[in-house]
Amino acid sequence: MNQHDPIFKVIELVERNMALADDFLNELETKTGDHEGITRESYGPGEDFAHELLSKKATSLGLDVYTDIAHNTYIRLPGSDRDAQTLMTGSHLDSQPRAGNYDGAAGVVASLTALTSIKDAGITPPQDIILMACRAEEASGWYKGHHRGHIGSRAALGRLSPEELETAIHVRDGRSLAEHFLDRGMNPEAVAKEPHLADRRIKGFLELHIEQGPILTSRDTPVGVVEGIRGNIRCRSAACIGEYTHSGGVPHEHRRDAVNATAEFINRMDTKRREVDAESRDMVYSTGKLFTNPELHAITKVAGETFFSIDVRSIEEQVLESMGRYMPCLGEELGAKHCVEFRLGKYSRTKPAIMDPGMRETLHRGCGRLGINRTDIISGGGHDAVEFSLNGIPSAMIFIRNENGSHNPDESIDLDDLLLGTKLLAWALLNA
Amino acid sequence: MNQHDPIFKVIELVERNMALADDFLNELETKTGDHEGITRESYGPGEDFAHELLSKKATSLGLDVYTDIAHNTYIRLPGSDRDAQTLMTGSHLDSQPRAGNYDGAAGVVASLTALTSIKDAGITPPQDIILMACRAEEASGWYKGHHRGHIGSRAALGRLSPEELETAIHVRDGRSLAEHFLDRGMNPEAVAKEPHLADRRIKGFLELHIEQGPILTSRDTPVGVVEGIRGNIRCRSAACIGEYTHSGGVPHEHRRDAVNATAEFINRMDTKRREVDAESRDMVYSTGKLFTNPELHAITKVAGETFFSIDVRSIEEQVLESMGRYMPCLGEELGAKHCVEFRLGKYSRTKPAIMDPGMRETLHRGCGRLGINRTDIISGGGHDAVEFSLNGIPSAMIFIRNENGSHNPDESIDLDDLLLGTKLLAWALLNA
Repeated sequence: MNQHDPIFKVIELVERNMALADDFLNELETKTGDHEGITRESYGPGEDFAHELLSKKATSLGLDVYTDIAHNTYIRLPGSDRDAQTLMTGSHLDSQPRAGNYDGAAGVVASLTALTSIKDAGITPPQDIILMACRAEEASGWYKGHHRGHIGSRAALGRLSPEELETAIHVRDGRSLAEHFLDRGMNPEAVAKEPHLADRRIKGFLELHIEQGPILTSRDTPVGVVEGIRGNIRCRSAACIGEYTHSGGVPHEHRRDAVNATAEFINRMDTKRREVDAESRDMVYSTGKLFTNPELHAITKVAGETFFSIDVRSIEEQVLESMGRYMPCLGEELGAKHCVEFRLGKYSRTKPAIMDPGMRETLHRGCGRLGINRTDIISGGGHDAVEFSLNGIPSAMIFIRNENGSHNPDESIDLDDLLLGTKLLAWALLNA
Repeated sequence: MNQHDPIFKVIELVERNMALADDFLNELETKTGDHEGITRESYGPGEDFAHELLSKKATSLGLDVYTDIAHNTYIRLPGSDRDAQTLMTGSHLDSQPRAGNYDGAAGVVASLTALTSIKDAGITPPQDIILMACRAEEASGWYKGHHRGHIGSRAALGRLSPEELETAIHVRDGRSLAEHFLDRGMNPEAVAKEPHLADRRIKGFLELHIEQGPILTSRDTPVGVVEGIRGNIRCRSAACIGEYTHSGGVPHEHRRDAVNATAEFINRMDTKRREVDAESRDMVYSTGKLFTNPELHAITKVAGETFFSIDVRSIEEQVLESMGRYMPCLGEELGAKHCVEFRLGKYSRTKPAIMDPGMRETLHRGCGRLGINRTDIISGGGHDAVEFSLNGIPSAMIFIRNENGSHNPDESIDLDDLLLGTKLLAWALLNA
């Protein structure tokens, strides 16, 4: 890279500004630590703290800060042509319960560091660059019932239906997301019906995020350029209804054992997953929540109910469609076999999102220019970038290495990797 | 039966006194009803109410009432030879959470009806007949951790170890049974160390109980004579420890999925059960409790833990021993396969109890004399009679038909069946 290239100065400044990123992440970790891991509840105190901290830092750096009615935070670096299509970057600030510090926050802090470095270099970009810190990307960890997650970005993009706010039910207090909005002085109807970004012409969206699996670590590369993001089919509140009875006195042929039936359902789903894998097609399957009724279950009772979640993901729409047909058939088959009823409930579905080829090419060029070793990678997790992409906005993602997965207290990143990712992000924001 | 036989009068009086039994059961149902089913917690308010009601009724019928330090209630009909070996009868008054009205209570009320009918007929039995209303037979539904259940009868018989009172942990408040005893003004050490029945010479124990399965109904007989009671091996607090991680981003070969592993464990246990059954050997298997960690689980996380119970029962000691060896091997095998750790914890074991041949013969003769159609039957449920039997006291049980199983709100009995069972009980108490 030519040392007289103004971008060279930006890249140098990113390196200097990493202390700011480090401070921000440390303060988040200190203030939103749970007795184990990190808890920043969607539309809860930890997330609120993170948004306030971000606003404070950005204001002190001389950047414009504003929010929308869904309580997303925006930070603007004005461009020379204020009417040109905006370039956007960002991620989210909430977390799963007792999870890690970096899922979401790493992307927001990288975007903030990139923006302030561009500003400090005295560069006025050709168009506004807007950092969006999204709300409630992790809503799945806090709200059960029927909703499609990614509440903040979907609200801003006009992809949220008002019904979801009623059917998303808080896992602890049983109240709806709409009620939680009212508690916060928000207007639930307006949130769904007045999307802040609807009328804005957006050139592209760039999101940096930690990898949520071990692939970059196993390939010994610090940075991933995301090819696409797996879509999913989810049953948030599936149930199996059998009959409670005595665990000693009732012969098996007279039982309607919900636990036995559910165990076989989960096994068969895993067998199906192996079959799909053997055909070299992409699929992962998880039942993260599974429980008998704590008010009625007992060691001496045959279980009359189970409740569980299903999360199937694939980069191939065809696999998701086929699983969407398979699951109710499996429920019927095992329901008949075990004399129980599987109630899978309403599916939520998210389509796979293929990242924009042009923006991926820009990221590849950036890696070349900055000498960054990278791997092309599929994202297993959903991200706010999915919503931008499915809304027709060219989108791309940068992953940074994290060997411990995410949604757990052991997420970890190397600041050197975050530095490389942030350099690439800054470069791409000036070359997209 | 000879109409001048004094036993004829007793049998007639049982028929008349059934109104008393009906009233007693109705009052229990009204006063210990939960919003669904019946709840008489072991050493809790519902059980206390039942014992107070029993004491009041027995006193009003002119019978001696007393209690022991474990709060079991005893009702005595004095015999002509007060030094002769005592004949005992009874059952328990507690219930599983939100269960039925008859499991336990039917036996106590039948015993009370039999005693008062013998008294009303002016018969002085050759020895004391003592009704014992046992405490906490259903402790398994209320206390997790390590204990062997049947707390009241085991305390009275000297079969309870003081350690169990510390390791039995209340399912809701997390406090030990010893602490609950202290709350009630009881002395936990004395309960385990000063067994009320230890020095008493007991001729036999007779327990009437509802059947806890559908066998009598399917054979269209009102009364069963129990041949033996299944023993069990139980793991109250088994766990599978894997690792929480992201449900989308982590390839399956890198996962340590506790739900998938546990589902396979349960399936394999059920397969084993089918194999044992195919060899015409006796075994039932239930996992009545199964749950991921409600504070950490999420639809978007691979489950890092499961917690579950195991209840294996058989009338054959050899089957129980073989399962006791099989389960840890299965845990090892599937632990290695799924990269998780199964922690089955300490087993509790109860041996199968074969009912006394002489007393069964007496019940067979009674059925013949009273014209009662009966079936010989194995008991799947454990009962206080097990503890008497394992203590070397000749024991026997009468089952009455109940088509809906037990430990659920749908337990039901026909008063005509209870009448037949009570007649048989009264007859046997005078002929044992």
